[in-house]
Amino acid sequence: MNRDDFLHEGERLDDLQLQGYQIIQHPGRFCFGIDAVLLSTFAEAGPDEDVLDLGTGTGAIPLLLAGKQKGRRITGIEIQEESADMARRSVAYNGLEDKIRIISGDIKEAAQMFRPASFHVVTSNPPYMPADRGLKCASDTFTAARHETLCTLEDVVCAAEKLLVTGGRFYLVHRPFRLADIICTMRGHGIEPKRMRFVHPYADRKPNMVLAEGVRGGRPELLVEPPLIVYREKNVYTDELRKWYYE
Amino acid sequence: MNRDDFLHEGERLDDLQLQGYQIIQHPGRFCFGIDAVLLSTFAEAGPDEDVLDLGTGTGAIPLLLAGKQKGRRITGIEIQEESADMARRSVAYNGLEDKIRIISGDIKEAAQMFRPASFHVVTSNPPYMPADRGLKCASDTFTAARHETLCTLEDVVCAAEKLLVTGGRFYLVHRPFRLADIICTMRGHGIEPKRMRFVHPYADRKPNMVLAEGVRGGRPELLVEPPLIVYREKNVYTDELRKWYYE
Repeated sequence: MNRDDFLHEGERLDDLQLQGYQIIQHPGRFCFGIDAVLLSTFAEAGPDEDVLDLGTGTGAIPLLLAGKQKGRRITGIEIQEESADMARRSVAYNGLEDKIRIISGDIKEAAQMFRPASFHVVTSNPPYMPADRGLKCASDTFTAARHETLCTLEDVVCAAEKLLVTGGRFYLVHRPFRLADIICTMRGHGIEPKRMRFVHPYADRKPNMVLAEGVRGGRPELLVEPPLIVYREKNVYTDELRKWYYE
Repeated sequence: MNRDDFLHEGERLDDLQLQGYQIIQHPGRFCFGIDAVLLSTFAEAGPDEDVLDLGTGTGAIPLLLAGKQKGRRITGIEIQEESADMARRSVAYNGLEDKIRIISGDIKEAAQMFRPASFHVVTSNPPYMPADRGLKCASDTFTAARHETLCTLEDVVCAAEKLLVTGGRFYLVHRPFRLADIICTMRGHGIEPKRMRFVHPYADRKPNMVLAEGVRGGRPELLVEPPLIVYREKNVYTDELRKWYYE
């Protein structure tokens, strides 16, 4: 089969710049961004660890984790059927069916779809905006990826709590303006925030992303890491960010 | 009276480098540090606002706030009588009795010592370490300033909750490793974290301090500000830090 057997009308193949992996994207739908790339570098998953990605979209995080040789088996769950279908075709295109499975389903029902405590690592790049913020059209695929219309932070953390083994790790990328929600929701569900990194567009700017690691049943003590700076100057990545992208 | 009328044996006068104000310190006891200086710059207090400093020690924060023309009347409360006495003598030495009052007392009883909701601003530079961490001698004045033996973060935030007006602001300097405790304790007491700044010794190091502002009854949304960097190189402050010190 060639690439046209995998691509539907209007779709394109984007290069993940890792192991030659490609991902199917549709310019009219939500496309993965730097957030997913940074989360896949920030997250740690050993060769014997099973990973669950909550709200996997078109499968960017599972593909990136596989490309970075992280995790044993990676499961992605996605509620929007068109996105799940694109993710499945990307997995097939890269020949990763043995490593990655994509399941159509609702995060709010994830705890019933898998055995309790059956994952070592849970990752998520969830919608950032509260459902009540800003204008939106509920049927819009962008809206569901950006606003908490179909799933809230609470839903994500609640699923992680039930599906992680004790000592298992939860990795999240989110917006700093939600930091209090992130920390209180994690702790409220027995996932102790243990490591955090703020991502700043420039060294002297406020952060526009936060990467967080929590440990299910961990004891309180948080490591805030050095700032991660994206650009040294306009359009020029810092050396560290280049490493994060391509390591 | 001259300086010797204010100083007891072994004590010295340190220059606060603000309005010519001096502070009485004892090298054998806990001396104020950069933490108090940064908190006094981070905190905002208008000319009509009354300020309470919880655990004021030798009065560094009230003196610094007065030196920066912040607040109307500033009250400091301190449980260690020797420190409170030094603070009172510093206030007198600088002729600030009309502006600052120092009260001997326990933060845990502060809610009974003042009318409820009688302050617009509460500041605190509390002990950073949990009582159970590290070796300590309970009678040691250093220990009480550094470990939560006499007062916990919970005690401080609980007092702030009761003594702040609705919409009043709580300012804290603490250690990043306690960030989850800080955020959850504040929110748990109705003081919403609204603004935060991490202080890094160098641009590429992890933060060793965090400055936090909470608003009593505020709505959730946190601004994480750009990193505050202390040193440009060894022993050389950054321009921004110099401004924070002397503005």
